[in-house]
Amino acid sequence: MIIVMKPGASQLAVNHVVERIESMGLKSHVIVGTERTVVAAIGDERGKVKEELETAAGVDRVLPILAPYKMASRELRERTIVRTRDFECGDSKIGVIAGPCSVESEEQILAIARGVKAAGATALRGGAWKPRTSPYSFQGLKQEGLKMLAAARDATGLAIVTEVMAPEHVPIVAEYADVLQIGARNMQNYLLLQAVGETRKAVLLKRGPAATMEEFLLAAEYILDRGNQQVMLCERGIRTFEEHTRFTLPLATVPYLHEKTHLPIVVDPSHGTGKATLVSSMSRAAVAAGADALIVEVHPCPENAWSDGYQTITLEAFETLLAECRRVAEAIGRTI
Amino acid sequence: MIIVMKPGASQLAVNHVVERIESMGLKSHVIVGTERTVVAAIGDERGKVKEELETAAGVDRVLPILAPYKMASRELRERTIVRTRDFECGDSKIGVIAGPCSVESEEQILAIARGVKAAGATALRGGAWKPRTSPYSFQGLKQEGLKMLAAARDATGLAIVTEVMAPEHVPIVAEYADVLQIGARNMQNYLLLQAVGETRKAVLLKRGPAATMEEFLLAAEYILDRGNQQVMLCERGIRTFEEHTRFTLPLATVPYLHEKTHLPIVVDPSHGTGKATLVSSMSRAAVAAGADALIVEVHPCPENAWSDGYQTITLEAFETLLAECRRVAEAIGRTI
Amino acid sequence: MIIVMKPGASQLAVNHVVERIESMGLKSHVIVGTERTVVAAIGDERGKVKEELETAAGVDRVLPILAPYKMASRELRERTIVRTRDFECGDSKIGVIAGPCSVESEEQILAIARGVKAAGATALRGGAWKPRTSPYSFQGLKQEGLKMLAAARDATGLAIVTEVMAPEHVPIVAEYADVLQIGARNMQNYLLLQAVGETRKAVLLKRGPAATMEEFLLAAEYILDRGNQQVMLCERGIRTFEEHTRFTLPLATVPYLHEKTHLPIVVDPSHGTGKATLVSSMSRAAVAAGADALIVEVHPCPENAWSDGYQTITLEAFETLLAECRRVAEAIGRTI
Amino acid sequence: MIIVMKPGASQLAVNHVVERIESMGLKSHVIVGTERTVVAAIGDERGKVKEELETAAGVDRVLPILAPYKMASRELRERTIVRTRDFECGDSKIGVIAGPCSVESEEQILAIARGVKAAGATALRGGAWKPRTSPYSFQGLKQEGLKMLAAARDATGLAIVTEVMAPEHVPIVAEYADVLQIGARNMQNYLLLQAVGETRKAVLLKRGPAATMEEFLLAAEYILDRGNQQVMLCERGIRTFEEHTRFTLPLATVPYLHEKTHLPIVVDPSHGTGKATLVSSMSRAAVAAGADALIVEVHPCPENAWSDGYQTITLEAFETLLAECRRVAEAIGRTI
Repeated sequence: MIIVMKPGASQLAVNHVVERIESMGLKSHVIVGTERTVVAAIGDERGKVKEELETAAGVDRVLPILAPYKMASRELRERTIVRTRDFECGDSKIGVIAGPCSVESEEQILAIARGVKAAGATALRGGAWKPRTSPYSFQGLKQEGLKMLAAARDATGLAIVTEVMAPEHVPIVAEYADVLQIGARNMQNYLLLQAVGETRKAVLLKRGPAATMEEFLLAAEYILDRGNQQVMLCERGIRTFEEHTRFTLPLATVPYLHEKTHLPIVVDPSHGTGKATLVSSMSRAAVAAGADALIVEVHPCPENAWSDGYQTITLEAFETLLAECRRVAEAIGRTI
Repeated sequence: MIIVMKPGASQLAVNHVVERIESMGLKSHVIVGTERTVVAAIGDERGKVKEELETAAGVDRVLPILAPYKMASRELRERTIVRTRDFECGDSKIGVIAGPCSVESEEQILAIARGVKAAGATALRGGAWKPRTSPYSFQGLKQEGLKMLAAARDATGLAIVTEVMAPEHVPIVAEYADVLQIGARNMQNYLLLQAVGETRKAVLLKRGPAATMEEFLLAAEYILDRGNQQVMLCERGIRTFEEHTRFTLPLATVPYLHEKTHLPIVVDPSHGTGKATLVSSMSRAAVAAGADALIVEVHPCPENAWSDGYQTITLEAFETLLAECRRVAEAIGRTI
Repeated sequence: MIIVMKPGASQLAVNHVVERIESMGLKSHVIVGTERTVVAAIGDERGKVKEELETAAGVDRVLPILAPYKMASRELRERTIVRTRDFECGDSKIGVIAGPCSVESEEQILAIARGVKAAGATALRGGAWKPRTSPYSFQGLKQEGLKMLAAARDATGLAIVTEVMAPEHVPIVAEYADVLQIGARNMQNYLLLQAVGETRKAVLLKRGPAATMEEFLLAAEYILDRGNQQVMLCERGIRTFEEHTRFTLPLATVPYLHEKTHLPIVVDPSHGTGKATLVSSMSRAAVAAGADALIVEVHPCPENAWSDGYQTITLEAFETLLAECRRVAEAIGRTI
Repeated sequence: MIIVMKPGASQLAVNHVVERIESMGLKSHVIVGTERTVVAAIGDERGKVKEELETAAGVDRVLPILAPYKMASRELRERTIVRTRDFECGDSKIGVIAGPCSVESEEQILAIARGVKAAGATALRGGAWKPRTSPYSFQGLKQEGLKMLAAARDATGLAIVTEVMAPEHVPIVAEYADVLQIGARNMQNYLLLQAVGETRKAVLLKRGPAATMEEFLLAAEYILDRGNQQVMLCERGIRTFEEHTRFTLPLATVPYLHEKTHLPIVVDPSHGTGKATLVSSMSRAAVAAGADALIVEVHPCPENAWSDGYQTITLEAFETLLAECRRVAEAIGRTI
């Protein structure tokens, strides 16, 4: 940690900073520059100390040196591979999660499960509890939806990925699902992160649309810290000034996170663009950028989907998409 | 709702849109322009219909005409006044909520409560459950903290404002608090919104740092829809490219929301800037912009605060701040 | 154009809107809804009329139906192919522009030109005039730099791409360059756009870091409107809250623009990420997303580059990058 | 400047960084931490050195300690007061610039000049050259417009503020105007900044909608560096995800810049909101935040304005606005 003093900060102020640093169990080192004095604090700086020093008299700002996360860091481990049923993610084979936004009926989810499985998907997505912006929108079939997902798994062998919205739902969702999804709106719902951290189910953690990489990795840290190592990070688009897409999909997240963490990186081109016509190109781009898995919204008839139809593609489009992605994957030495 | 067809959309596609509109119980009206055909759908368009039409063949885009919220709308009512103990918000008197980020001890919270009361505050803030970005940061004193807040209320008469983080905590927090705060990270935690909507406690709903006005008002709608009318909307800064402040505080939210909703608007200059030196100017600006209440972080010694010290001001600074804000309030015909 | 009236707007206000619409030579059509009245204006709405109507009494907002650009629109033409020397962009062959941020010496630019040509580039980039954030940074070799670029073209046959910063520099830059680059900071320097529009040189128009698609296409329209049809649009990253990269590179721009315009789309992964380690992955992703050309910063020794070293890759890295991109291009049926 | 090495960086890499630092004429200081080694570079770090070091082997990142601007810094001087005719800005009296977006006719500009002068304005704004997003929009009366502005000044004594769009226009605009405005789109048009820097006319420099504070102050530095000290910085709104206003007006810019620079700060609530109904509240808020001047778009009949009508207020509204702002100014010990 580097503490930058204000121009003309008094010796007293510098001494005070030194004392605080040492009272935290860190070593200090004062460097007198031509215009500014800076104090280096040596040792493990993680915790609340940065905030304390920022407020001390004569301090201009505090620059952290160490990343605030530990267990998510690539310094800990080279890579994590998440495997559940036929789904695999983090190694050379790219995982493919596909399915409708919402589970609508057993018939619907079975038909989609069979369709996406035939096209090459290894996991089935489908919402049973749906967080919706408006209280007047369809909120999901809840436990009935979970049962329909389980039936689809029984019929196809696909791993089931579904969202869990509250700590008290974790047991019931974990009973049916193979992968617990934390939605973007809940990325910083810490009680929920801790609850899924207590299970040993794989977790798909979606990036909040305004979350920095540090916040995203610290959210993962909450899960890892409870002992659950099966965490996948999912880029699903951020909120920017762009208005021609619903969100802006920043694919540089993929190689950046691969430098920083051992966790596998999933890309969601459906939410990441919010436009069905862009999903296919962005899926190919995600694979080329090094994504470890894709999660795509698919419905036999997007116009009739109960939610998210505008960003959902048909089964036919999904088959073409996967065929294209397979060729791109091979071009970079991976498989789908 | 206006459905804009693509250039050259077929008559069949237009007919299909018309049929869908009418099957939703709306009336349709086709307008053939020089370059595009548009179809107007007449009637109450709220619900899932927009999404369905966006996906239909030949449709370019769908432009909603009506706001998706009803109960939060100013068309429903001129204004809502929130009152609890001495705190009042939404009428000519401006509410003042002040206190530490976290409750640290009974001694600390009592001293601050007395100090802010003397300066003119009408409510005391203080976190008992603290949502923290890092799992390694202090997470709050929890129920013990609530008891300390209640003791401070008993000693001063100030209304208590404290955050509730999960639906299952609502009963216990409601037992001690006068105002239930929904934090920015939980603005779209719909189960939590519904849970506070079931109480009859006043709610302080903080804007998510990436939330649009429509999403913010729909979050309020979740609470209102459950029958709780005592909702205050709090602007606490948004996430933008700006890096010299922690968040960007967009004060135009205040007059904009006053045009759209009857709910009172609170401003949080502490989180909204993240810098203690900017809190005072932005408090004055918030009052001048028409804010109905302020919520300010105050601590006897910010350097020793267990959290948020960098944006916390001293009791002395708070006294000066309120004196200045009082003069600005009078200049625009209000009081503090 | 759809004019949405406020709730309860008077008949007088509606009549006034109708009169204004008709005085503009458009036809009007009034639709009385259950909650709002809307007026449709039929005809070519491009020009200043939207602004006038937005201000009229009783008007809530005005929704444009037609895109404000004409000549850049895909409705005009299927595609534009830009060709100059061996560089080609917009057809199945993907263009490759590479070179240093700044021209530093004849020796430097010749060595790089030979290196990137050998690796497969078809054009050479290099700045002679350098817009720099700080007045204390190196500002380019100016005309001397242009001469060095011309020498590199003579030696290699590569097309020369270089930035022009002011209308009065257009003649001299056009004398040496094959492609005139408009930098991101100048995307809305309309006098400059008009000046390059008067030439018949190809233009590489970079997106401003806060420009919407509509503004970007209208900037191109300024050039096209002066008769120059050889315009390439370059996505080089936008400014968002993300701080782990210098800019956020939104690759969905590529398929989106392909839907809207006939102009070829170039991607700049160097500025778009601002990090040398991310350039290679994002180049592959750009190709997979459908980019018509890449522009990459390359230097024999980035550490010694006079500018932009942190986002510049070595010649060896560039060779590997192109080999990988070639395989991805083939996977989607294109060539490099 | 602090150079943070990667974990496990070799001694060779550290030595290389030390050598580069010393070859730049700076002193170096190596600090070996528990997890990372950092190297402090002592001396004036301004210039291109940061970029070079960022690229060196084993370097993770470089943290600058000193601000990159010098002449704009508050460390140089306490405050700058800009005075021209009756307009004054930077001292206790708040400047008021008002007028139409575009000069439309001598009659129009004279009527507005008289109106705003009577209400209390000290300067007249009006565009003669208009940068417009669309090539099909009105582009200004150019030199004829300048003459009309001069006539309005002769009639009222108001100082004239008008935009200059290109270096070659600086002489002619400077002949008629008292204050040269640099528009937001040109904030980083460095040749234009240098050209106005060569004059001794006051300059109103508008913040680019995606500019950081550092970029904004460095743009001012370009002007100051050429010897022109009469620079005002104008906050006019930034581009964010917010869509209910045209731009987001971040008033914390005002107190922040007052901490960092001696230059006066102007606020533009018209462009900053893009909505006539919000201009008045945000003008009051700007004054309360400490703005040194306001610049407001005023037109006798906004509906008939040739540009920007949606954000333009009437003369009557402007009178009320100034009366309110005057009371707020008095409440904080200033005058209008």
